[in-house]
Amino acid sequence: MTAEPHRDLVEATLTEALALAGERPAALLEAMRYAVLGGGKRIRPLVCLAAATAVGGAAEDARWPAAAIEILHNYTLIHDDLPAMDNDTERRGRPTVWKRFGEATAILAGDALLSLACRVAAKAPRNVEAIIAALGDAGVGVVRGQAEELSTVADGARRPSTDHDDFIYRHKTADLFVAAATMGALAAGGSIDQVAALADFALNLGLAFQYEDDRLDGDGLFAPDETERRARAATDAAIAALSPLPGDTTFLRQLAERLMERKN
Amino acid sequence: MTAEPHRDLVEATLTEALALAGERPAALLEAMRYAVLGGGKRIRPLVCLAAATAVGGAAEDARWPAAAIEILHNYTLIHDDLPAMDNDTERRGRPTVWKRFGEATAILAGDALLSLACRVAAKAPRNVEAIIAALGDAGVGVVRGQAEELSTVADGARRPSTDHDDFIYRHKTADLFVAAATMGALAAGGSIDQVAALADFALNLGLAFQYEDDRLDGDGLFAPDETERRARAATDAAIAALSPLPGDTTFLRQLAERLMERKN
Repeated sequence: MTAEPHRDLVEATLTEALALAGERPAALLEAMRYAVLGGGKRIRPLVCLAAATAVGGAAEDARWPAAAIEILHNYTLIHDDLPAMDNDTERRGRPTVWKRFGEATAILAGDALLSLACRVAAKAPRNVEAIIAALGDAGVGVVRGQAEELSTVADGARRPSTDHDDFIYRHKTADLFVAAATMGALAAGGSIDQVAALADFALNLGLAFQYEDDRLDGDGLFAPDETERRARAATDAAIAALSPLPGDTTFLRQLAERLMERKN
Repeated sequence: MTAEPHRDLVEATLTEALALAGERPAALLEAMRYAVLGGGKRIRPLVCLAAATAVGGAAEDARWPAAAIEILHNYTLIHDDLPAMDNDTERRGRPTVWKRFGEATAILAGDALLSLACRVAAKAPRNVEAIIAALGDAGVGVVRGQAEELSTVADGARRPSTDHDDFIYRHKTADLFVAAATMGALAAGGSIDQVAALADFALNLGLAFQYEDDRLDGDGLFAPDETERRARAATDAAIAALSPLPGDTTFLRQLAERLMERKN
């Protein structure tokens, strides 16, 4: 399994999803498309589609949940960039949504994308209740992680608390990976055990991703060698979680392994 | 049917729904509860529960969709009040969420509530796909209505366009009523015809509500007598839409009639 055919499915489904939001008013819809269709690595939707094939199902079955998780991810980026939040003016080499379209339109575009994510996830071919529960839990969780991180900034200093960092890593980063993997498995008809295995994979992938970020940035709670040890352990745990799955897990395993080889 | 037993069901379910979002971080969760559990007329959730009984079902079946639409409504109020939007400092006689908790927490509290709305609507006892579709469509629609209204303010003048006002009225106001009624009927197992009748009722109720607002505020697109004529026509259409329903529609009819008697 290579990523590229699935990437085309992701892009096509995202374009189709955005069209469901209509054309009016023009500035709002343009801002929504600018945010979602303007590139990105599409890691979360690719994980969602790969989870479907990992349980022995068809990637196609997971295309709407895959679009949903990427749309949700992009709404979080729009709101994160706002002046009242991180006050970022550039993302992916372009002006951020608020910088380009104004703050009010950026707030509203993020809001509309979150509802659209919910809307398109409901188009999954089966297990819609559980898929929406996973998406909703991740949507609440990612905000709780952001707010916890914000409370650090508000305190004026990074609090040296493993519990605090662990909460942020699990929620701000891992929750969306967990939802992506869980929804993909559910949409393809995976068993409870298979869904749990993929959730375990995705939690550890998310943690490894975050430890690697700390290592590359040279910050984080732990000393560099401890950060690397934790990244390695989480990567190993992610890969081990894949073993009981009946389908092709090549992409998911390679994704976890490539994380450890990142240079930036 | 009186509103009060249903109001208790609404309040109890909202409290239960908010508890699903956890306790951490404290400021975020406090802001979410402050917004949702701080009062309000609860018209939309009461319409949702009444729609369930109107199709001959149990109000209890619609309690999660009812909570979902009220939570969604309250997120829109939090974001509407933000400095970059309407810049309001007071609502329901108390400081607005951003004024009390800061802008970043207000943005995040609204975001978390929208995901929570999606999460709890999925707890409906049946027809979850259609219920989530209705909620998601309304969530996108209400933002499109807000953005259309914003484009008027940006233009610096009220554009005399029936099409423009009609778009705002339908989406900013009526979409949430339509979702409330539709979800309630679906959760109680209503037929397609019954769901359509309740959607028709709710659209006209929303339009009547908006025309009445124009009449009371002394503004709006039309002359006072034309505004009143339109409010009356929409109210009559709302009440007429209830006639094929097998269950008790007293509350819904009275709600529409009371709208016409509002003094403020």
